Amino acid sequence: MEQIYLDHNGTTPVDPKVLDAMLPFLRENYGNASSTTAKGRAARNAIEQARAELASLIHAPAESILFTSGGTESSNHAIFGFARQATAARRRIVTSSIEHPATIQPCRALAREGFDLREIPALPTGVVDLAAAYAAITPETALVTIIHAQNEIGTIQPVAELAALARAVDAPIHVDASQSLGKVPVNVQAMSIDALTIAGHKLYAPKGIGALYLRSGITLPSVMLGAGQEYGRRPGTENVAFIAGLGVAARLAAARLESESRRLRILRDRLWAGLSARVPGLVWVGQGVDMLPNTLNVLFPGVAGNDLLAKTPEIAASTGSACHAGDSKPSAILLALGLPAAMALGAVRLTLGRSSNAQEIDQAAEILSERWRELVGLEQRGVFRNGPIAVARSTRRGERRLEW
Amino acid sequence: MEQIYLDHNGTTPVDPKVLDAMLPFLRENYGNASSTTAKGRAARNAIEQARAELASLIHAPAESILFTSGGTESSNHAIFGFARQATAARRRIVTSSIEHPATIQPCRALAREGFDLREIPALPTGVVDLAAAYAAITPETALVTIIHAQNEIGTIQPVAELAALARAVDAPIHVDASQSLGKVPVNVQAMSIDALTIAGHKLYAPKGIGALYLRSGITLPSVMLGAGQEYGRRPGTENVAFIAGLGVAARLAAARLESESRRLRILRDRLWAGLSARVPGLVWVGQGVDMLPNTLNVLFPGVAGNDLLAKTPEIAASTGSACHAGDSKPSAILLALGLPAAMALGAVRLTLGRSSNAQEIDQAAEILSERWRELVGLEQRGVFRNGPIAVARSTRRGERRLEW
Repeated sequence: MEQIYLDHNGTTPVDPKVLDAMLPFLRENYGNASSTTAKGRAARNAIEQARAELASLIHAPAESILFTSGGTESSNHAIFGFARQATAARRRIVTSSIEHPATIQPCRALAREGFDLREIPALPTGVVDLAAAYAAITPETALVTIIHAQNEIGTIQPVAELAALARAVDAPIHVDASQSLGKVPVNVQAMSIDALTIAGHKLYAPKGIGALYLRSGITLPSVMLGAGQEYGRRPGTENVAFIAGLGVAARLAAARLESESRRLRILRDRLWAGLSARVPGLVWVGQGVDMLPNTLNVLFPGVAGNDLLAKTPEIAASTGSACHAGDSKPSAILLALGLPAAMALGAVRLTLGRSSNAQEIDQAAEILSERWRELVGLEQRGVFRNGPIAVARSTRRGERRLEW
Repeated sequence: MEQIYLDHNGTTPVDPKVLDAMLPFLRENYGNASSTTAKGRAARNAIEQARAELASLIHAPAESILFTSGGTESSNHAIFGFARQATAARRRIVTSSIEHPATIQPCRALAREGFDLREIPALPTGVVDLAAAYAAITPETALVTIIHAQNEIGTIQPVAELAALARAVDAPIHVDASQSLGKVPVNVQAMSIDALTIAGHKLYAPKGIGALYLRSGITLPSVMLGAGQEYGRRPGTENVAFIAGLGVAARLAAARLESESRRLRILRDRLWAGLSARVPGLVWVGQGVDMLPNTLNVLFPGVAGNDLLAKTPEIAASTGSACHAGDSKPSAILLALGLPAAMALGAVRLTLGRSSNAQEIDQAAEILSERWRELVGLEQRGVFRNGPIAVARSTRRGERRLEW
């Protein structure tokens, strides 16, 4: 049996149409886009076509798109760039408590340099507290940087509202759309934002390509310095193949956005229905708030998510962000929502994508709930106390089992 | 007729074996290497195998290799990293006058921050002046950073000698081997260096992947901050496909290094013989010094290299570094060797590679010399004054023609 892939927020497969668009640039069209040879011009044309396609997906002009090596570089470019350009009177960086490391780490580095870092707390629903944001975003603000859809739990953050607060104090706002782009509409004009991080490998393009939208007229110092590529805004020989792939990925995402979102939402809700009917006390983090249609982060009671997945080789999923897997501490994001550590340890993130179908979803619900019952020893005990509150205990076999 | 590709220093095609190694990771093996899923473990294994293969090519332990988005990122990582780690007593950066922009620009940014930047001049042979290096490399030195093989002219720099000078004052040395790796032996132990820049797309791997060798025990602050990939030393979801490709490219380069270098040297010398027999006054920059076997940078007398190549669509070549093509100023590298601007404008860089063969080389020599004769109006004038010294004049058709 082929493994059921429910880790699309971790990474997506490359769409076959995206691969087809890339292959000529990995074979005969190998020119350097900075070269004036015929092959070089073909590469240049492919890059400019991809720029237009990606721009179109986010409702931006083509020249506002810079290609980068991925979401991490894009967020670093924006965050360090805006901070370096801020006037001496603006020394505050406003972010949230539920960001990706590619935002958290640059913000903390700026704090070590003396910037006044404010992390807007998130409510238990998984959404940042706008009242706290209102207090934090002052005329001293150099930058507001916020995740659009939280990668572990999928909750959509009130970006347009935060952008209005930033605009009111004349501060720029950067949005990390790595996880949201292609899953929900992303319109940089409607959001009224200054910068947007795009990550190819969450959008059925490969790992190692990304982009940064920068509102027309904004130029930021690059995180790297070198030759004059990307109109002098990002040096390094262009990754023509992956850029061409990202362009096609953007076109596919735009064409499929509405129908695929609807389809995934139905499947995701079916997965929740199947699991919650079989697992008493199962909690869906962020249930009921505006959320990505493909994301289901559930807290299994009485077990550690890592142990549950280790016993479920038929399913590929994660217990938090794939970026810090192998780590058995509870997810910092879930803790930031105020969840107790013992509950947070039970988290399993199930994220659907283009390959998902109803049969797989039904199988996944069945297998996961069966393994949970085995692991939690439900049969042996004969009794199940409702509710997920529990304490972690180690068993003789070294598993982290929660007792309640 | 297929264009004769003589721009291998600009970029190389992806070797078909490299592409074959990449394809599984662009198709079914799409796991995130940071994930503990089966696909994630397959990705992780591929990365570690590639790390070992690349390390082996440069005679280094596997753990000393970091994967990056390309040569530019690698050089930025090394140069900014060593500078940031230097003690307050070490505020001098020593480089040369014939570096790539990915070295020049970081060094100049450090100079703007207050570092004392010293550029060792190059002799007219195309090799840095060791006497000047001896004077420049003092105990105040934070870093020596030097190109191994100069990308436009191919001359090999005395890296081991510079490393000894750096060692004597306890300063680290970074070497940019983007252009030399795979063409001449690169042994980080024999060179006794601390850091080495590797660029995939000069080595028959794709554009958008590179690596940085850092001597064991050295950890530098990354140019980007984020999650814990590359053992916490370089964040961002790994470009598994291109990393796997770079590993195979390294293995192929190691296996073919000696035989292919010999073959290319013979072809390159044949190209020079064919051209110099037909073009009186042709100058080979760096002739006679230790040089890459594939590189021939020649100065055509009485014409601008750009005009000559524009009239020669059968041949793909460049007039300097592809990284700043489209620019009609004489190459800064050639000017740094003390060449007059009028001579430098006549430069054409012809760089051979795996696809090059004797038939193409003979055709290239014939076509280029014919077009040169047409362009320079040799037939019409009936007279050709030997020697390349000339002044640039614009013709009515807007071409830069040199008169003498």
